[in-house]
Amino acid sequence: VTHRVVIIGGGFGGLFAARHLRRAPVAVTVVDRTTHHLFQPLLYHVATGILSEGEIAPPIRSVLHRQRNAEVVLGEVAQIDLAARVVRSNVLGSELATPYDSLIVAAGGATSYFGHDEFALDAPGLKSIDDALELRARIFGAFEMAEREPEPAARGPWMTFIVVGAGATGVEMAGQIAELRRHTLRSDFRRIDTSAARIILLDGRPQILEGFDARLAERAMRELGRLGVEVHLGARVTGIDEHGVAVEGAGPELQRIAARTKIWAAGVSASPLGAQIAAAAGADLDRGGRVKVLPDCSLPGRPEVFVVGDLMSLNDLPGVAEVAMQSGIHAAGQIRRRLRGDDEPRPFRYRDLGSVASISRFYAVVQFGRIRVGGLLGWLVWLFVHLVFLTGFKNRVSALFHWAISIFGRARTERAITIEQVHGRRVPTAEAQIGESDLGR
Amino acid sequence: VTHRVVIIGGGFGGLFAARHLRRAPVAVTVVDRTTHHLFQPLLYHVATGILSEGEIAPPIRSVLHRQRNAEVVLGEVAQIDLAARVVRSNVLGSELATPYDSLIVAAGGATSYFGHDEFALDAPGLKSIDDALELRARIFGAFEMAEREPEPAARGPWMTFIVVGAGATGVEMAGQIAELRRHTLRSDFRRIDTSAARIILLDGRPQILEGFDARLAERAMRELGRLGVEVHLGARVTGIDEHGVAVEGAGPELQRIAARTKIWAAGVSASPLGAQIAAAAGADLDRGGRVKVLPDCSLPGRPEVFVVGDLMSLNDLPGVAEVAMQSGIHAAGQIRRRLRGDDEPRPFRYRDLGSVASISRFYAVVQFGRIRVGGLLGWLVWLFVHLVFLTGFKNRVSALFHWAISIFGRARTERAITIEQVHGRRVPTAEAQIGESDLGR
Repeated sequence: VTHRVVIIGGGFGGLFAARHLRRAPVAVTVVDRTTHHLFQPLLYHVATGILSEGEIAPPIRSVLHRQRNAEVVLGEVAQIDLAARVVRSNVLGSELATPYDSLIVAAGGATSYFGHDEFALDAPGLKSIDDALELRARIFGAFEMAEREPEPAARGPWMTFIVVGAGATGVEMAGQIAELRRHTLRSDFRRIDTSAARIILLDGRPQILEGFDARLAERAMRELGRLGVEVHLGARVTGIDEHGVAVEGAGPELQRIAARTKIWAAGVSASPLGAQIAAAAGADLDRGGRVKVLPDCSLPGRPEVFVVGDLMSLNDLPGVAEVAMQSGIHAAGQIRRRLRGDDEPRPFRYRDLGSVASISRFYAVVQFGRIRVGGLLGWLVWLFVHLVFLTGFKNRVSALFHWAISIFGRARTERAITIEQVHGRRVPTAEAQIGESDLGR
Repeated sequence: VTHRVVIIGGGFGGLFAARHLRRAPVAVTVVDRTTHHLFQPLLYHVATGILSEGEIAPPIRSVLHRQRNAEVVLGEVAQIDLAARVVRSNVLGSELATPYDSLIVAAGGATSYFGHDEFALDAPGLKSIDDALELRARIFGAFEMAEREPEPAARGPWMTFIVVGAGATGVEMAGQIAELRRHTLRSDFRRIDTSAARIILLDGRPQILEGFDARLAERAMRELGRLGVEVHLGARVTGIDEHGVAVEGAGPELQRIAARTKIWAAGVSASPLGAQIAAAAGADLDRGGRVKVLPDCSLPGRPEVFVVGDLMSLNDLPGVAEVAMQSGIHAAGQIRRRLRGDDEPRPFRYRDLGSVASISRFYAVVQFGRIRVGGLLGWLVWLFVHLVFLTGFKNRVSALFHWAISIFGRARTERAITIEQVHGRRVPTAEAQIGESDLGR
């Protein structure tokens, strides 16, 4: 009988693990709650109207369609039975048990509000297609509301955008909103001057782009300044509601900022599956809820179970795409070696391939080893890296076309706001359908 | 003071009216509940994963950005005060009164279930971006559920797709599902043979494509047969629920069809604004709820108010894009003539530019005057017409690229199903935001 490998999650960790098993004598099953592979680093391009959701979220089964030893199953994993070696998943009340011989848990994480889950109401994160479409409606919708507002004084809160968290996602998001208000939208509106919109980037830490070289972060700061983004460091967000944000530590004038649109780019939490398997296996969780694994990425006492990517806690590695890809490949490699009779666990060694953050068109910062690049050259590196890692030839061509439109034409083609997003849902739908399934709950 | 023209609705009627006023000495305000112009004839391409929503729904303000005498306002029209000449609109509880000197009502319509609104739960229509994204999730999701189902016998209802209504939309939808199950999806799945999926097209009338020449409809029937679509004419749908459809008049074996996915392409109802202005002006409604207008498209006794497009009842004209465009232009022309001092009302004369329906790749039927074309030549006409009328150069290039992918590569790039569409919404959001606004209701 064939060795069965189940992979939970089709993100970078899961997908790279599956592909690394393509020539192995195994049967691979990828279980994912959406069945699309999400290219998370470009979610902000969906949220700001540059790319469509399809371009960054190809179906996993489509990516793997030539890999005959791999199948994909839609399902939200409810429980992993480590003793029985079975993964139990649900969709719309239908339950499925998928047995495994080896298991790779690549379930990733979600937005963390650091104990303030009530912020989620007013400040969506940026971790899923749903988040991106929600933010797209809010960002473009805010300008619509400002244009519609007869009292100029009442336009301010609609014309203020707050991004909480100045890591790569927050910086990139702030830069994109700054560009679209100045260039894309300006000639579309009659009553408001969209270029007067305020973009405020808040972070509690003393530097933007944590993990980047301080001088490179300084250059990114200057570019953000040129775009008109107001950056406040050492600023802790203590409250968020519909009308604005409360801030501490950034001067008295900042205690309360009126803003309708808030974007949370501050924290990542681990999937709750982490706590579940840690409890079942007697493993430890780190402060972020990630599972502490052995040096070979396996679960202590469960050599057949690997935890990779954002859910893995090992050597303080950051929760970035590169770590997910490499740890996924490492886990797959361990399984392959074992099937060849080599039971010696090899430690996972992360090769840091550098970091890149794009601030505006033609401006990105890149660090790779001791190399530091900012500006146009950095942006070309950014473009190259994202084209290479974007999944699927068709998506690459399509994205390149849309990038050209946004860069040279200053336009964004994906700006649709739906009736439901503005006015609410009209028609409730039955529960046992995909789509609208939330209404029964 | 400038003559103020308010246009309700930015569909074909409203947009063509606004453009026809670009050189007139007027101030145009387009009020729309979404602010995008929707190219409805291609909604089925969004529902079947070929095009993205942005490609067929550009912002009206973006389409009109060079027309300096035009502005666009987001708002759902709650009331038209014909005596005071004011349009009152709402968004998220904010009210706005927009005064007019001339008014063009181009509010269009919605899906009609012929008194069975409860069908909407299980059989979405195809009139909005929300509908298309909902159907996209249901269609692609149904194959996911079938693949996941361990019991082959239980897969049937997930592998059965029922399209109610065999007009152009229903025929095109059925043809697209037929093609994607055979070509796009086949190599992506492991347990199910997607090409075995049943597509059933039902209509109570004796012919598909009502309004088309009978011989052309016959050719379309043969092409549907070649695609494996089961067409049942004279079949009245008497019930729809989560599990299937009840049918009368199509033989005993069809009394009950088990199918998870149902698509309603059968009826169009007029916007409720029609009934409101008819009551206020003492005008009549036709059986479909459309407003009976004078031959110049104006409201009886209210020469400054025009009703155009799907909401207009005049000479039994059908509710198609061509009628909307031409009647919108006619109303705008009346306003221009009046401003030049020519008060003589001119009757609207519709020039039938023909009909076209695409059945499959390389196959469409076209009639224009006495010309009848089917097959590849018809399909080239279809392609040309849709490229010409699709709004915006960038959208044309982008759509052409995605059509090439779907035609030559047999692939569809817009197949994302979101977490919320499968598993329901996780995070409720505040009411006074665009996006998620429905949750407060």
